[in-house]
Amino acid sequence: MPDSNLIETVRVELADRSYDILIGDNLLMQAGEKIKSVLPNAKCAIVTDENVAAIHLEALQENLKAAGIEAKPIILPAGEATKSYTHLQTVIEAIIEMRLERGDAVVAFGGGVIGDLAGFAAASVRRGMNFIQIPTSLLSQVDSSVGGKTGINSPQGKNLVGAFYQPKLVLADTAILNTLSAREFRAGFAEVIKYGLINDADFYDWLEQNWDGIQEGGEKRIHAVATSCRAKAAIVARDEFEAGERALLNLGHTFGHALEGITKYQSDVLVHGEGVAIGMVLAHAFSARMNQSSPDDTVRVTNYLKKVGLPTDMSGLRNHVKTADQMMDFIAQDKKVSRGNLTFILTHGIGQSYIANDVPAAEVHAFLTEILES
Amino acid sequence: MPDSNLIETVRVELADRSYDILIGDNLLMQAGEKIKSVLPNAKCAIVTDENVAAIHLEALQENLKAAGIEAKPIILPAGEATKSYTHLQTVIEAIIEMRLERGDAVVAFGGGVIGDLAGFAAASVRRGMNFIQIPTSLLSQVDSSVGGKTGINSPQGKNLVGAFYQPKLVLADTAILNTLSAREFRAGFAEVIKYGLINDADFYDWLEQNWDGIQEGGEKRIHAVATSCRAKAAIVARDEFEAGERALLNLGHTFGHALEGITKYQSDVLVHGEGVAIGMVLAHAFSARMNQSSPDDTVRVTNYLKKVGLPTDMSGLRNHVKTADQMMDFIAQDKKVSRGNLTFILTHGIGQSYIANDVPAAEVHAFLTEILES
Ligand SMILES: NC(=O)c1ccc[n+]([C@@H]2O[C@H](COP(=O)([O-])OP(=O)(O)OC[C@H]3O[C@@H](n4cnc5c(N)ncnc54)[C@H](O)[C@@H]3O)[C@@H](O)[C@H]2O)c1
Ligand SMILES: NC(=O)c1ccc[n+]([C@@H]2O[C@H](COP(=O)([O-])OP(=O)(O)OC[C@H]3O[C@@H](n4cnc5c(N)ncnc54)[C@H](O)[C@@H]3O)[C@@H](O)[C@H]2O)c1
Ligand SMILES: [Zn+2]
Ligand SMILES: [Zn+2]
Repeated sequence: MPDSNLIETVRVELADRSYDILIGDNLLMQAGEKIKSVLPNAKCAIVTDENVAAIHLEALQENLKAAGIEAKPIILPAGEATKSYTHLQTVIEAIIEMRLERGDAVVAFGGGVIGDLAGFAAASVRRGMNFIQIPTSLLSQVDSSVGGKTGINSPQGKNLVGAFYQPKLVLADTAILNTLSAREFRAGFAEVIKYGLINDADFYDWLEQNWDGIQEGGEKRIHAVATSCRAKAAIVARDEFEAGERALLNLGHTFGHALEGITKYQSDVLVHGEGVAIGMVLAHAFSARMNQSSPDDTVRVTNYLKKVGLPTDMSGLRNHVKTADQMMDFIAQDKKVSRGNLTFILTHGIGQSYIANDVPAAEVHAFLTEILES
Repeated sequence: MPDSNLIETVRVELADRSYDILIGDNLLMQAGEKIKSVLPNAKCAIVTDENVAAIHLEALQENLKAAGIEAKPIILPAGEATKSYTHLQTVIEAIIEMRLERGDAVVAFGGGVIGDLAGFAAASVRRGMNFIQIPTSLLSQVDSSVGGKTGINSPQGKNLVGAFYQPKLVLADTAILNTLSAREFRAGFAEVIKYGLINDADFYDWLEQNWDGIQEGGEKRIHAVATSCRAKAAIVARDEFEAGERALLNLGHTFGHALEGITKYQSDVLVHGEGVAIGMVLAHAFSARMNQSSPDDTVRVTNYLKKVGLPTDMSGLRNHVKTADQMMDFIAQDKKVSRGNLTFILTHGIGQSYIANDVPAAEVHAFLTEILES
């Protein structure tokens, strides 16, 4: 499958904070020109991780240099542990040492870890510098680089500290995903499937039929990424600060986060997208149990996730996840719990998710007990 | 002078981030009721410093309790050194430990140090909680609590890290200033005078005539604080993110910051408002030297600042400030320097300040050399 020349543009409409996401193969080779078109005079700090730097940093630096953009890299260790106060301070001080001003730019070049950390640093240095995202993992292209959530983890939990801060431009190079591990690709793909399941049954149908093409790359992958970005952008445009509808994006995530918590975020055991995959199956199964959807949809989702190579139940985690109480502890702690009521994303069927407030904790407990303890 | 029952309200107009500043004697005794009126169900974290806590915390806690508001204090050391990464993390983690949610509130109860730090913490916990300011120093009532700048210092400089984050309500209790030291009161008063000098000659006249009444307290003090808040709010409403006009608020501050830098922010040597007082005299003198204003205005400002008990020249700092080069090093580093051009706030006379871009550094250097080295 040769690379495609197609470039899709998704506009994120947020009044004076609106921006474009460009999606296409080898966009990295146009980074300088594209950045110059939105920020003609900006110097750049490139925040990246060791893995991405080893494979792709030289190409980015040469491209920026050819466009006449002054840029210096800040290279961090790869992995979730980098989203910490310590690394935030390191990045902020490196940016200040470079004497960058508000009109200059912080460029996040990596997966969601780098995007979240660099975005919070960009938001905080001088109370807000320009920010550019060049997401390099599938998850970051379809999810974390869209919508302006940035942040770090605190000892008490993930993503508890940060800012809503929008980039000026996002460049999603779909060919750069060829160097991503198959496991990380699948994990990111769980979020792509999520958009179909939330509110776009046609997209879900298309995804079912095109997994091979999306893996290969080219136009089908571009379409999958662009449709995902468009779906998320539409929800974010209506609810930038997560007052309501944005919660739909958490389909599968309440269960998923509990699994990540119980397995202590050890990525050899479970990565985020795998937790989301299992969580989406559980959300469908729980919805069916509550007579909100048909069990056939649960089967259909399970089968597709299996075909993709994602986990669909907790059988691989039985060394860690043993009781319903274990799960409930994390679910009740989850930041989407408001004033003690459980809020869940449930579904009336594929493409028909909805926000259910006041889900009885006892029902969730009973559901998990059946699965885990019988 | 008995306390007054007058409550002045200044509305800060910032679209969906608009809020009221209430100004009056003993407003602390209405804190619970006023907070409840904007946030009926919020729990509160009260961020304060040891000095303010010792004198006033019990009264605030009792008042909130009487209003049925759950509140816990976070007490920090007093002083500029508290605006650090370390204390930011302490405050953030304490708030998270209290299990507060976005709809709950962080209450800053102290001077500008506490307001800046607590505001940045409120902006960052869960990407933004409700924020309430109860400023207790004159400087924080007329300046730092208006306009949404929050932040901490970094090893490379003051206020380099932070967020623009607006409170939901500001309660300026003008009677609480009675426990502030005379020196801190005068320092805050330098910022009050600044508003007259920027664009309100009538207010400046009134201030000249009413220094005694303002010191005594009651309606004149309330008027001085309210007029200052109104002046800053008007500028901030037109330029929330400091793209232009907001720079006017830096009248006297470029010189002032240089003096603070050279004296290493040792508050026994110089506090911010004292640096601003000297800086305002220098800004008037430099403007006169550049034939922009009359030397008579410089004399008038100098005389009034002297009457108030503020320093008006660098004679008290001669152990630290010795050469023009020393000053220029700080001035060129100042964050309001854009791409190498010096931007200064100059004046055409009292109440007629303006933003001067492209001020020749050589002229500033010559001006300072005359004062310091002749
Ligand atoms: N801000 C948001 O809205 C949002 C949404 C979802 C997830 N997130 C966050 O995103 C993070 C997860 O993102 P992620 O899955 O991208 O993790 P990641 O950034 O850790 O990247 C995964 C791994 O892939 C490597 N990698 C990335 N691009 C590569 C490439 N092109 N070639 C080879 N290796 C590459 C990375 O070095 C890393 O080892 C989490 O911290 C999560 O909280 C944020
Ligand atoms: N955010 C902004 O827009 C803005 C604007 C100007 C200044 N600032 C910041 O504000 C800070 C200075 O503020 P500040 O002058 O209030 O300093 P501060 O907070 O250190 O307070 C000064 C001293 O007065 C004490 N104090 C405060 N209220 C008191 C009271 N009622 N009774 C007795 N003691 C009291 C404090 O404990 C402290 O020792 C600086 O960090 C500066 O950068 C911010
Ligand atoms: Zn996710
Ligand atoms: Zn000031």
